[in-house]
Amino acid sequence: MTALTKRKVKSARALDNNVLAELLDKIHQSINPVVVLGADVDAAQANDYAIELVEKLNCPIWVAPLASRCPFPTNYAAFKGILPGGIASISQILEGHDLIIVIGAPVFRYHQFEPGSYLPNGADLVLITCDVNEAARAPIGDAWVGDIKPTLKQLAENVVQRDGVMPELTVAKSVVNITTPLKPETFFDILNDIAPEDSIFVNESTSTTDIIWERLTFKSQGSYYFAAAGGLGFGMPAGVGIQLAKPDRQVFVIIGDGSANYSIQALWTAAKYNIPVIFIVLKNGTYGALRWFADVLGTGNVAGLDVPDIHFSALAEGYGVEAFQANTCEEIKDALNKALTLGKPALIEIETWGKLQDEGLNIHNS
Amino acid sequence: MTALTKRKVKSARALDNNVLAELLDKIHQSINPVVVLGADVDAAQANDYAIELVEKLNCPIWVAPLASRCPFPTNYAAFKGILPGGIASISQILEGHDLIIVIGAPVFRYHQFEPGSYLPNGADLVLITCDVNEAARAPIGDAWVGDIKPTLKQLAENVVQRDGVMPELTVAKSVVNITTPLKPETFFDILNDIAPEDSIFVNESTSTTDIIWERLTFKSQGSYYFAAAGGLGFGMPAGVGIQLAKPDRQVFVIIGDGSANYSIQALWTAAKYNIPVIFIVLKNGTYGALRWFADVLGTGNVAGLDVPDIHFSALAEGYGVEAFQANTCEEIKDALNKALTLGKPALIEIETWGKLQDEGLNIHNS
Amino acid sequence: MTALTKRKVKSARALDNNVLAELLDKIHQSINPVVVLGADVDAAQANDYAIELVEKLNCPIWVAPLASRCPFPTNYAAFKGILPGGIASISQILEGHDLIIVIGAPVFRYHQFEPGSYLPNGADLVLITCDVNEAARAPIGDAWVGDIKPTLKQLAENVVQRDGVMPELTVAKSVVNITTPLKPETFFDILNDIAPEDSIFVNESTSTTDIIWERLTFKSQGSYYFAAAGGLGFGMPAGVGIQLAKPDRQVFVIIGDGSANYSIQALWTAAKYNIPVIFIVLKNGTYGALRWFADVLGTGNVAGLDVPDIHFSALAEGYGVEAFQANTCEEIKDALNKALTLGKPALIEIETWGKLQDEGLNIHNS
Amino acid sequence: MTALTKRKVKSARALDNNVLAELLDKIHQSINPVVVLGADVDAAQANDYAIELVEKLNCPIWVAPLASRCPFPTNYAAFKGILPGGIASISQILEGHDLIIVIGAPVFRYHQFEPGSYLPNGADLVLITCDVNEAARAPIGDAWVGDIKPTLKQLAENVVQRDGVMPELTVAKSVVNITTPLKPETFFDILNDIAPEDSIFVNESTSTTDIIWERLTFKSQGSYYFAAAGGLGFGMPAGVGIQLAKPDRQVFVIIGDGSANYSIQALWTAAKYNIPVIFIVLKNGTYGALRWFADVLGTGNVAGLDVPDIHFSALAEGYGVEAFQANTCEEIKDALNKALTLGKPALIEIETWGKLQDEGLNIHNS
Repeated sequence: MTALTKRKVKSARALDNNVLAELLDKIHQSINPVVVLGADVDAAQANDYAIELVEKLNCPIWVAPLASRCPFPTNYAAFKGILPGGIASISQILEGHDLIIVIGAPVFRYHQFEPGSYLPNGADLVLITCDVNEAARAPIGDAWVGDIKPTLKQLAENVVQRDGVMPELTVAKSVVNITTPLKPETFFDILNDIAPEDSIFVNESTSTTDIIWERLTFKSQGSYYFAAAGGLGFGMPAGVGIQLAKPDRQVFVIIGDGSANYSIQALWTAAKYNIPVIFIVLKNGTYGALRWFADVLGTGNVAGLDVPDIHFSALAEGYGVEAFQANTCEEIKDALNKALTLGKPALIEIETWGKLQDEGLNIHNS
Repeated sequence: MTALTKRKVKSARALDNNVLAELLDKIHQSINPVVVLGADVDAAQANDYAIELVEKLNCPIWVAPLASRCPFPTNYAAFKGILPGGIASISQILEGHDLIIVIGAPVFRYHQFEPGSYLPNGADLVLITCDVNEAARAPIGDAWVGDIKPTLKQLAENVVQRDGVMPELTVAKSVVNITTPLKPETFFDILNDIAPEDSIFVNESTSTTDIIWERLTFKSQGSYYFAAAGGLGFGMPAGVGIQLAKPDRQVFVIIGDGSANYSIQALWTAAKYNIPVIFIVLKNGTYGALRWFADVLGTGNVAGLDVPDIHFSALAEGYGVEAFQANTCEEIKDALNKALTLGKPALIEIETWGKLQDEGLNIHNS
Repeated sequence: MTALTKRKVKSARALDNNVLAELLDKIHQSINPVVVLGADVDAAQANDYAIELVEKLNCPIWVAPLASRCPFPTNYAAFKGILPGGIASISQILEGHDLIIVIGAPVFRYHQFEPGSYLPNGADLVLITCDVNEAARAPIGDAWVGDIKPTLKQLAENVVQRDGVMPELTVAKSVVNITTPLKPETFFDILNDIAPEDSIFVNESTSTTDIIWERLTFKSQGSYYFAAAGGLGFGMPAGVGIQLAKPDRQVFVIIGDGSANYSIQALWTAAKYNIPVIFIVLKNGTYGALRWFADVLGTGNVAGLDVPDIHFSALAEGYGVEAFQANTCEEIKDALNKALTLGKPALIEIETWGKLQDEGLNIHNS
Repeated sequence: MTALTKRKVKSARALDNNVLAELLDKIHQSINPVVVLGADVDAAQANDYAIELVEKLNCPIWVAPLASRCPFPTNYAAFKGILPGGIASISQILEGHDLIIVIGAPVFRYHQFEPGSYLPNGADLVLITCDVNEAARAPIGDAWVGDIKPTLKQLAENVVQRDGVMPELTVAKSVVNITTPLKPETFFDILNDIAPEDSIFVNESTSTTDIIWERLTFKSQGSYYFAAAGGLGFGMPAGVGIQLAKPDRQVFVIIGDGSANYSIQALWTAAKYNIPVIFIVLKNGTYGALRWFADVLGTGNVAGLDVPDIHFSALAEGYGVEAFQANTCEEIKDALNKALTLGKPALIEIETWGKLQDEGLNIHNS
């Protein structure tokens, strides 16, 4: 029997003219469109065409809920943030738009149960997707199936430049003063200042995801990774793998103490193969994502959600990774700067103010 | 919650220029190409572009093994027939070609185990498919994934006209004289003469499939249907459904006595809703497909493969369908002509000479 | 490697004395017990021990809902009938009993949704079962797991003879006079008179199951078979298989026209191997079980539930089985008597009065 | 709807007299029987009846392969050890016995592929099991299905006292002198001396399982736990759970460095809830079970099987568990004695000589 030869599969599938025309028509008829971009734009490395499209449409752009990658520069004027994973909230945020143009995302990935209208009143939705199953699954809107990069290129090149002033939606960043323990906002501001220009951030600090999107800047393709479905244990090994793949960019794994135990063993791999990821463990002594869900579901206080008294520095040492404890702004800056010059993996352990302190609970006694 | 609105999914995915160019290059470099077309060409209603492509390539065209539809006019000079479902046989038949261009078919659907080379020596294969799974599954050759109709159009329009005389491959039809019982060849010749120009044939006479492809003429889109995977019970209800969908074309269901019992109940639906399918039951008293497999596998005579003494005319009557028994050429012509003018469903029951008689077995004693 | 030898598995699992004592205690403390027997009593051939137990308990006995076999002689004074498959109905029927002793049945197989109490007020339930999964699944009552035959023997031998007059629960048979078309009650009375003493009845006339239990007499082990889960297509091939297994007893398959088409092909097997089952098709022109469910669910008239104009005599002839049409009492008696002396399979086709006539619908126009 | 009441399921299923008699007959006819006991004997707490049976049969007793519990006192004269998980090895070890009486175990749990005869020549096998699926799955021998405790009691009480001298099979313990690093044999001898009389051992040091069975003494019910199917990650959390369930007995978790990382997080639970398990990590710097399999499969040296440079003391500290490093006999004795008086969880980290040193490999450079 013939030995199997090396095979290639090519799939550069753009829309043909008729089908493209229908899509452009819909867009051109819109008075007040909005673009929602998903992870597939980043995965297809079509980020530049997304910018071109948004500039021509002259409209706001949101990131799809629970996005596993960042498809658009977050320091861009039109960038409004990441949508929440609830039906009613999305409708409320997109109120006033007559056309929602979703590219490279499911419509939509919902997390918490929030009954409501899928879309704001009077709004229509179009989906450009490379995934026939997402096309079929979407509960609302028409879908155009094509590979994201060539299709987005077609769209950007053929859409007519739109006039007018972009609606003023930008939310000011919240001001945060609490310093003991540090609020996560403060930490992310420091990190954003110190991290090298093209850093890569792997996020498994589920309960601070909104703050991450607000405070960190993702400029270039491949700057942000998240486990879309929310499964835990992804962050630490993912960071190790991404740093292996991208030796010229610094990878930061941002992880909560509730998440960090799922795959703590990844520290050994980083040490053993000398992969210089910087692991940042944000300790608020609790399992923040579950506390948040308990709140959404109105369960009251649930037993077993706290994870106090874990010494990540000792765990790091056990697996051969250099560790830093840093609780003040100065200590954090110092630790980050040292870690960046080590040339090997490092772990920084930071106590942060969390939901528990917000609620007046003393997590250290829980 | 919003009521679900009517959604549309569009997917007219053609190749972009770079990817198309690579494919055209491969084709233009071929000295002696051959085209193999599959059911998806017919399903995508791209038959005319297939003709245009074959005329420009000036090369033979085969139908892919176990095709569930006919993608090409079988009365066309370049048409060579249907490939068998075995690795070695395909290599042998396609010997001498340096490029095999497969469009709209799996590479390949194999039925009987025939170890060998996937391709003839020196041959290369390219696959144009709309099915990403078929692209991944193919054991050999590069794949281009695109919707069949726009991609085949692109290919036909952009391929360079090829010179030269087509290799002489045409197989003469076998001559058949046996009349009692009739050989299937004789019956299909009669049917081909009498059936209206744009008839539709649904085939579940598995053991005569090769003869059907040799003797019947399929000219237009949607003229032939077969259960690709070979599952039985498809033919009779499929015929009823297709006749409902295509009231202006005559549907013939051609089915063996081994297959006809799986979904005999479809006769009632045809009668009850007055759907004028013509069911033709070819009776050789045995389960031909299994006998054929027993032969391939060298099992010797296996018990329980014969199905004598079924009176399909009585079954038809039981479900309210008018029935004819026809065993000679004249009776068959007469029955077909009557059935065509009935304006309601009919069943024609025909005793045919089968493999058993070829082997000197007397099926009526089995 | 050793050739696999013929293996035996023995599993004569009776209760040990302590566990038996607990069960007996519960039974002896009951003032007004009732026994509910399931198919496993018949399958384990423990019918005689069931009689012995009921005689000692001197209490009524019911058959468990949707039983697939008959575990008790239906002509016995204590026999009250088959329980319906609904929670509320069972509670109502068993009202007044303080202990429900279930043997060889799930607790319980419910069919229609009837919310309510699992048990009548003040009642307790014990389950003797050979199926650990049934023990786990039962929503109510304690379970004793043991093989049915030895356990029922233990129970019958060790239970103390109970005094008192059995509560008077017997329901008189309904009187039925309609003769055109015949009511099923009338037919079953005739069948009960003519069928040989030890006949076996296979039931797939789902909509007349209650009438069958009311009118037919099942005396000995293995006299009744039904597809417990209600799946259709079981009756005709099951009848053929049972007749093969029990050549000395006459098998009757009682089947509705709604069910008979699922496996009509079994007629051919009966004819081909000359297996003298008598198939009785009760034609009311509709799919009675679904009509009944439509009624329970309050769906109004649902399309596609009628199956008029099927000529089962012709179908039988098509497959080689001798057929009779019989619509009056005399014709039915005549057909049954003839079929019983044929020495080969026969089918009797009978038009019966069904729910449709009860509702004033004219099924022949549907 | 009725609130679900607390239900009980009783299943004291002993053999009835006829079935028991057949089993006793087989045993009484045997010249040279052997008993093989499995985990279900320990799970059913039928250990004393197993002793009674073996004393009456006056025959050797083996533990079934890969047993997850110890069903018999290992310091008993008749106790021969644990069978290996290979077809050929079992046949060879049991050579000479004419009847193999298996109780409470699958027949058999095979691990490595060793083609051969299921049984020695001339041997017969009987299986007493509480698991109907094991009865069905066994490739050889007849099976009696009954609950282990009452069935073993019946058997022990009814079997006839057998004369004769037990065949001399006892294997002397190997003598081990290597002390740097310590051979596992030496460590287990120390542990066996120091561990309290009724200690419980949880084993996930897969590559030293044979040595554990040779060196440790399991006297009473519930003294040994192992993940029968060999899945890793079981040992540390299982030890925590068992210690919670049995506060009056000391639990030791014996685990390799290859296994200890799977569920290292269990240390936190032990610390947080102050559950005084003693975790013993045997470090040979490699993944011993996989090295063993690589050897069986003849793969040569496989990459990625070594796990050097893990500091379990630091990991223990990270999760709040007190840790000891002990590499000499004296240090180990000292650490064990201290751990036993702590009143809280402890981890002892011990470097041991493993297969690598046997092969002359220097694991610290791997």
